[in-house]
Amino acid sequence: MINSQMPLQSSYRDQDCSVAAALEVVGERWTLLVVRSVLLGSHRFEELRAALGIATNVLQARLTRLVDEGVLERRPYQDHPPRCEYHLTEKGLALWPVLAALTDWGDTYLRDAPPVTFRHRDCGGTVDGHRICASCGERLDVTDVVAEAGPGAAPDHRLRASGPRPLSPAEPSIPAR
Amino acid sequence: MINSQMPLQSSYRDQDCSVAAALEVVGERWTLLVVRSVLLGSHRFEELRAALGIATNVLQARLTRLVDEGVLERRPYQDHPPRCEYHLTEKGLALWPVLAALTDWGDTYLRDAPPVTFRHRDCGGTVDGHRICASCGERLDVTDVVAEAGPGAAPDHRLRASGPRPLSPAEPSIPAR
Repeated sequence: MINSQMPLQSSYRDQDCSVAAALEVVGERWTLLVVRSVLLGSHRFEELRAALGIATNVLQARLTRLVDEGVLERRPYQDHPPRCEYHLTEKGLALWPVLAALTDWGDTYLRDAPPVTFRHRDCGGTVDGHRICASCGERLDVTDVVAEAGPGAAPDHRLRASGPRPLSPAEPSIPAR
Repeated sequence: MINSQMPLQSSYRDQDCSVAAALEVVGERWTLLVVRSVLLGSHRFEELRAALGIATNVLQARLTRLVDEGVLERRPYQDHPPRCEYHLTEKGLALWPVLAALTDWGDTYLRDAPPVTFRHRDCGGTVDGHRICASCGERLDVTDVVAEAGPGAAPDHRLRASGPRPLSPAEPSIPAR
């Protein structure tokens, strides 16, 4: 249903609106799915390419843009040849509420069963639509949450093999620029 | 910073993910801004065109898609010539959490001061990042909230003239298809 004949407007910059400003950074095709994949544990270029199934040049452009905008940071993991991983900055991790809200909406209106569910890391309670633990009532931040395969996950879904995964990084993230 | 030379992928359909399913419906350029404008009270084609400043054919394509997907419904308001307004369905109103999260992120990382702020309609309390009233603690739905011009609104911002506006429709919305 995507109509690629539609002319693209050059920007949302004239819109006096924080939604427009946010979409100017993360509204490009594939961008929020790159953020989602990093959040779910894909950090290397090849992992991201495999997770997303998109062309190398598109992925490289999205990653460069997200690093330039301070949403992702590069972390070297190999010197010869030089290779880096992509991790979310504080600004990038702060996109979790956007992804959680899109997940809820997609689960409710577009899918028969959720492919991914979120739980409170400490008590195992489910995460409600206000990002509050349905079991203990705590307001949850991205660092409090694990993702796991839901009833709608495909048999080969990555989270089926890995088990529950924390959304937050193992190492502290750099502050947003 | 938008690179219109990037090839567009045809769809996110192979992604086993509710975020991808949601973006397949609302991730197209301008689509979420159309939803935002309807939520803030623009219902007629000319109002939306003026609010968004986009080409007539792009706006018409986005509106048709959103009606087809059950996010918007048409309501006739004039017979000669026939004219209709666009209103959010239950499915469309359920996008408010996505827009609220994008607003928060844009306010925090991209703007000096918020152009639009949200308040609890009943008690006037501000709406926190979990969509909970900071004053009375109530969990807020879209029907509980009014939008008003914030400290970052331009002098000609529509909400300055209108004062606080409820986000929910005056008439009950139709159920999602």
